[in-house]
Amino acid sequence: MFEKEFKNLKITKPIIHNITNYVTVNDCANILIAAGASPIMSDDIDEVDDIVDISSGLCINIGTLNKRTIETMIKAGKRANRNQLPVLLDPVGSGASLLRSSTANRLIENINFSVIRGNASEIKALAGLSSNTKGVDASKEDIADINLAKQLSRKLDSVIVITGDEDIIAYDEKTAIVKNGNSMMADITGSGCMLSSIITAFISSNKKEVYNAAITAVISMGICGEIAFKRLKKEDGNSSFRNYLIDAFYNLDFDKFKEMARYEMA
Amino acid sequence: MFEKEFKNLKITKPIIHNITNYVTVNDCANILIAAGASPIMSDDIDEVDDIVDISSGLCINIGTLNKRTIETMIKAGKRANRNQLPVLLDPVGSGASLLRSSTANRLIENINFSVIRGNASEIKALAGLSSNTKGVDASKEDIADINLAKQLSRKLDSVIVITGDEDIIAYDEKTAIVKNGNSMMADITGSGCMLSSIITAFISSNKKEVYNAAITAVISMGICGEIAFKRLKKEDGNSSFRNYLIDAFYNLDFDKFKEMARYEMA
Amino acid sequence: MFEKEFKNLKITKPIIHNITNYVTVNDCANILIAAGASPIMSDDIDEVDDIVDISSGLCINIGTLNKRTIETMIKAGKRANRNQLPVLLDPVGSGASLLRSSTANRLIENINFSVIRGNASEIKALAGLSSNTKGVDASKEDIADINLAKQLSRKLDSVIVITGDEDIIAYDEKTAIVKNGNSMMADITGSGCMLSSIITAFISSNKKEVYNAAITAVISMGICGEIAFKRLKKEDGNSSFRNYLIDAFYNLDFDKFKEMARYEMA
Repeated sequence: MFEKEFKNLKITKPIIHNITNYVTVNDCANILIAAGASPIMSDDIDEVDDIVDISSGLCINIGTLNKRTIETMIKAGKRANRNQLPVLLDPVGSGASLLRSSTANRLIENINFSVIRGNASEIKALAGLSSNTKGVDASKEDIADINLAKQLSRKLDSVIVITGDEDIIAYDEKTAIVKNGNSMMADITGSGCMLSSIITAFISSNKKEVYNAAITAVISMGICGEIAFKRLKKEDGNSSFRNYLIDAFYNLDFDKFKEMARYEMA
Repeated sequence: MFEKEFKNLKITKPIIHNITNYVTVNDCANILIAAGASPIMSDDIDEVDDIVDISSGLCINIGTLNKRTIETMIKAGKRANRNQLPVLLDPVGSGASLLRSSTANRLIENINFSVIRGNASEIKALAGLSSNTKGVDASKEDIADINLAKQLSRKLDSVIVITGDEDIIAYDEKTAIVKNGNSMMADITGSGCMLSSIITAFISSNKKEVYNAAITAVISMGICGEIAFKRLKKEDGNSSFRNYLIDAFYNLDFDKFKEMARYEMA
Repeated sequence: MFEKEFKNLKITKPIIHNITNYVTVNDCANILIAAGASPIMSDDIDEVDDIVDISSGLCINIGTLNKRTIETMIKAGKRANRNQLPVLLDPVGSGASLLRSSTANRLIENINFSVIRGNASEIKALAGLSSNTKGVDASKEDIADINLAKQLSRKLDSVIVITGDEDIIAYDEKTAIVKNGNSMMADITGSGCMLSSIITAFISSNKKEVYNAAITAVISMGICGEIAFKRLKKEDGNSSFRNYLIDAFYNLDFDKFKEMARYEMA
């Protein structure tokens, strides 16, 4: 399973347009290349239509949103919808400020997202539930909730990905639980952003199989976290872990994927 | 000494709000996580009050200031003061342009800073003395001056940290000299920015002991520089050094701190 | 050959002003330091004259251009011309959007560039030829063309650098082909941006020998790519490669340069 979705990415080498934050943008670009995609970062409203037009998918990440780039996000998302490109939303820190919450809502009202990925606090905030936000990190009190994911998926007609100790992927009545990953992924900035970019790449290479492509992406990222963790030497810390994580994606092949994948589908 | 200040950071896991430059922001986020804090980067004026309200401390760094973010800095700083949060100023490149110098002055007039950290050139410029600025790096002709630090500290009622071959920490009549560190820290971008973020984390976990917390932060960073340097292999250069520095923070415990700390207090 | 150009950089330690993108800016800063230069990043129109005035050279990179920074680029370039500083243009993604193409043209009309560096697609777009742009990466169908480089060089009175499998450096009737480098340089973001910053550093240390200094920079970068590639271990990928590339610059001396340089001049 997932062999076609996995291999399509390296075959199609999609251009992925990222409107994203300036904190983790370099890691997002490098992991996209590691996975076989071609990243382009562009956030000026006057060029965004042109960039969408040469891209295969769009990743919108509100990590360091500002009023200039919010308008760009909306314009780009609409264009991507018109062009029938997959669009992903990463509502970073939704719930941490009114601007983030209202922007996430504006984006959802104006754009049809193929996938929305966040941690439990962000997805709860997006669904209009009160969350115990700890800034951009998930609160331990916010448990990833399968029913919430399914409900939000039906409401927005989007695949919902909630990442945490275990990752939930939901679309309508279907759900998958991914058990790959390592807790050290929470010890670097950008694990979530990188996964969002990677999901965008997989769904852009598998436009007819968005749900399976999203699962493939989440499993792949989790496996790379495990490989990176195993590689740690005594003096290594989170900075080396970040390098190993991206390195692992660069070297990941389907045999390794098949051997290491741990998930349940319902 | 410094055991309580050191341990409080990992216990309290403070959210640190950074309004900072886009050059070293990723390193600042990763070293904050390495130290046990939770970073959030946010610079839009419309969300800054909300972000300050969920944060434990604020780090203002003018490394790539622009007119949009300057106003955000002032608003955030005032809110943080109102909320009685520790606020740190890193006046990157103060003296290198009129905009930087005047912005640093505007910030000082509008915000009460718990700590101000810069190199000798930046602190001299801030004190209104002519400096031999070399852009964002300290000029060799600008010697870190204990009396200047004390004077500025009394004038602004802030702890002043001047980093260099030896680091000076001053508050009113008290001074400390930290001898930890390695000259290779000047061979990466962001040593200063990272230290500023780290000081903010320590003072946010030790609100009643800002002076001691700042010293703890400076010693910790210096020790990590030494550990990183010892770890260098023949082919390693400044990029590996950067990774090792952050890694060292990830692995630093109080036993190591106690064993390696080198400082004098007066 | 190139000994003087190579050594002048470490002797003069030029301050290099970069107006650049937020994707690869950290790598550009660290590789500039690795090479012996002192980077400063600054993009606010109100400080740009001051920053140019303390700098030895200016690198303009349109990788994540926006309307605010475009005006800064033009102002800074004019000031650098007035101050007789070397100025380099990296027309990232020229051809990928009208805004990028027209901005590149505006920059060329308003500023006299010492060097323009891009991949084959970008340089073709800049010359007004249709290119098969793949976003910010060169299309395989766009072959680096010596005659195009010479023609554009004469038209703009700039040294033209086209990077690819082999790198072309042209000035008027003179051309050089550099055969150093490794294909893995295309597997990280920022190889091109880093080279542009490095060229700026070399030409700023060799103002009377811009053509030879540019060749020296291109050879140096290619050599570092080869050294980085040789250093890769089994589990390493593009993230480690990036670190090794910058590390290699940190350790590069003229003996190694002389031993490894592979080029042809005509």
